[in-house]
Amino acid sequence: MDERVKKALIDIVGEEGYTDNLIDMVSYSYDASEHRHRPSCALWVESAEQVSEILKLANNELIPVIPRGAGTGLSGMAVPIRSGIVLDLSHMNRIISISIEDRMAVVQAGVIYSELEKALKPYGFFFPPDPASETVCTLGGNVITNAGGLRGAKYGTTRDYVLGLQVVLPDGRIMRTGSKTMKSVSGYELTRLFVGSEGTLGIVTEMNLKINPRPPKTSTSLATFDDLRDAGKAVSEIMHSGIIPSALEILGKHTILAINQNTDLNLPEVEVMLLVETDGYTKEETDFQMSIVLDVFKKNNCREIKRATSKEEATDLWKARKTAYAVLARIMTHFVLEDITVPMSKIPEMLEGVEAIAQRNNIRIATYGHAGDGNLHPQILYDGYDPEQVKNKEAATAELFKLSIDLGGTLTGEHGIGLSKAPFMKLEHDPVALDMMSSIKKLFDPNNILNPGKMALKD
Amino acid sequence: MDERVKKALIDIVGEEGYTDNLIDMVSYSYDASEHRHRPSCALWVESAEQVSEILKLANNELIPVIPRGAGTGLSGMAVPIRSGIVLDLSHMNRIISISIEDRMAVVQAGVIYSELEKALKPYGFFFPPDPASETVCTLGGNVITNAGGLRGAKYGTTRDYVLGLQVVLPDGRIMRTGSKTMKSVSGYELTRLFVGSEGTLGIVTEMNLKINPRPPKTSTSLATFDDLRDAGKAVSEIMHSGIIPSALEILGKHTILAINQNTDLNLPEVEVMLLVETDGYTKEETDFQMSIVLDVFKKNNCREIKRATSKEEATDLWKARKTAYAVLARIMTHFVLEDITVPMSKIPEMLEGVEAIAQRNNIRIATYGHAGDGNLHPQILYDGYDPEQVKNKEAATAELFKLSIDLGGTLTGEHGIGLSKAPFMKLEHDPVALDMMSSIKKLFDPNNILNPGKMALKD
Repeated sequence: MDERVKKALIDIVGEEGYTDNLIDMVSYSYDASEHRHRPSCALWVESAEQVSEILKLANNELIPVIPRGAGTGLSGMAVPIRSGIVLDLSHMNRIISISIEDRMAVVQAGVIYSELEKALKPYGFFFPPDPASETVCTLGGNVITNAGGLRGAKYGTTRDYVLGLQVVLPDGRIMRTGSKTMKSVSGYELTRLFVGSEGTLGIVTEMNLKINPRPPKTSTSLATFDDLRDAGKAVSEIMHSGIIPSALEILGKHTILAINQNTDLNLPEVEVMLLVETDGYTKEETDFQMSIVLDVFKKNNCREIKRATSKEEATDLWKARKTAYAVLARIMTHFVLEDITVPMSKIPEMLEGVEAIAQRNNIRIATYGHAGDGNLHPQILYDGYDPEQVKNKEAATAELFKLSIDLGGTLTGEHGIGLSKAPFMKLEHDPVALDMMSSIKKLFDPNNILNPGKMALKD
Repeated sequence: MDERVKKALIDIVGEEGYTDNLIDMVSYSYDASEHRHRPSCALWVESAEQVSEILKLANNELIPVIPRGAGTGLSGMAVPIRSGIVLDLSHMNRIISISIEDRMAVVQAGVIYSELEKALKPYGFFFPPDPASETVCTLGGNVITNAGGLRGAKYGTTRDYVLGLQVVLPDGRIMRTGSKTMKSVSGYELTRLFVGSEGTLGIVTEMNLKINPRPPKTSTSLATFDDLRDAGKAVSEIMHSGIIPSALEILGKHTILAINQNTDLNLPEVEVMLLVETDGYTKEETDFQMSIVLDVFKKNNCREIKRATSKEEATDLWKARKTAYAVLARIMTHFVLEDITVPMSKIPEMLEGVEAIAQRNNIRIATYGHAGDGNLHPQILYDGYDPEQVKNKEAATAELFKLSIDLGGTLTGEHGIGLSKAPFMKLEHDPVALDMMSSIKKLFDPNNILNPGKMALKD
């Protein structure tokens, strides 16, 4: 970093807010994707006013600025691919207010998801979109990536819970969008334009979030299937049944095998496991919904059903699902975790397609995900030091995306485009839509300083 | 309309698709607001391709184009304030597909809400955001205005159910946005930018809508209160109680009196009535939720509770609420229906404020609305031929907006800005946000041909 600019940045954030130490630069060179690139410096910011000053400077000097929460993103969004300034928002971690009767929490961008959960718990409330990295991920990161998670089928994604924002624009202007009310149709929907924008349009510093009462009762079951098609049909029929489970998770054979090889969970080595949870205010409600789901499982030739009779048993049933990512991440030197999403009726075809793609490309793919909203996570395991396997991984990835789009699906249900999926944007989107996305980027950030190189936006 | 342009338009839509008859021009001069202005002509369009040709022509000739569904809007959005072409989309009324297992319906913009409801009913599914004009309003209108309605507190608004769009841009390009999946974070959220954009950015011709299973059981009760503050406290406490009723409607004293004067419903003439509905899959679930709500009512000194014991009784309890708008609309020669929305904790203050504003301005205001999401509908009744009353109405409106904003609220929860609230946008929004809204308008519609003069966007 140029000494003059460095001095100016230190003037804004203080010595303690600035780093260009090698070890920090290495830390800030990656997120949870396979991409790596070092920034020129990183700043810990404390306020929207500091962010404003930094952006004004960066905009004048044409220096890239990359916002960062906890760096748990899986698509390379937080990787400073063109160097520049990493803006670490994790110090802006204040829960500003909670108003239960207004169903709203106002938080700074750096608040960790589980900190908000802790604050809401005494009231019996929660923030539904839990991306499953809840003890680490920041709410600002969740908003800027539109994080999904385990409860998407019933509760939607982060987008559905963002009422208003404080955003710093690339020219340093601080903007308030949206409202503090449950409903508003006053002017264009700027708020949700920023949700999922991956830090390319502005830096979100504060959010008005809608919160929900947490239904106190749940019912949890696990079903195993010997046939992929049967499991897929069961998912479709649940959708038809009038029930929306609060979770409907799927684990494929390779995921199950990997879990058994690496834990003592001792799962039945079947083709597919489906984990289902229903929720409500009364036991009758959760049981009624569960009985419909289990009838569907039986009708579709499930091998075995385990139904939790206590909280502890429910936790046990969840263990396999919750351990999947970590287990698979350790098996080979490298992995990529995809999150293609298809219409629910296409889940069986997608699962079979993933198998065929793995075989055709001679690579290991283990799949799990959120069957309830069609969101599958094929995790491709490979040796990143073996050029052959890297090539195969890349071919398999491209085929996965193509198949998803052919089935009416999307490249990404919840992980975002970032760097990983940028080359595939044309597969999914209409050229007119891509053109308008680039035009919107240019409108908000004419000098392309905010997280440049992401999302296939035109430079 | 210039003869050359008229001929070109007829070339696109045929003789039967074109009108500039006086009687039609009068019909197209108004919507459900108090605004009136005649267009130069109106077109009945049949396809996105026709819309594209029309927009290309209009864009070259700089002629305003105003999209129109059923004209049920309450803010003047469909009023052609600068004349030009009214684009009537009501003939594009095809339900293209319904896929229950994918939780999706694809519909053209002109499909009437209740037609979709009818098509979904056999499956036990519904499209939750019902704006209460369900037998008339078009789904395209609902999308473009982000319609709310009776179920907002539990089910959200139209925005939460739009997955993808076909949109014709002002330059004639036809664009697909979004996806056919429950979740997607692929690129900028263009879809929801169009939702609520009031026809100023593009013409929405087709929509992918998310649909829900309809919980089969409901429980309905009505409570009366002699004290506004008690009713307000009850609403707040319901929010705290962990329950989200599927409806929580409020009727104020002047609404109740007007209903009694004009129907034979014979309501108790109290200060406030609260109508509440809970839903679920089992009777236990709806009863449990209702018992919590009724406990809150009792604790807050309600005078009387009527609890429906049959579907017929529930329908009877709903009658007062459902009749309010129509009854109030007939009392005086003119009315405006506002829909200020405040944080739920501010409902009592807002209700008291409305009373004070009515007295101060010597005008009649009857209030009802959706207490469950803070959305109140003060309906101002006046004689539009009496300049004094018109002046008072305008002063009262301005005061209502100011009070709503002062209480942390918004100008409009579900009716939109249009012409009626355009002068007040500055009250609510940050100048930076207003500037960005105008810039977005300019980006999509540089010649300002689409529904010009609405939403306080800069020309």
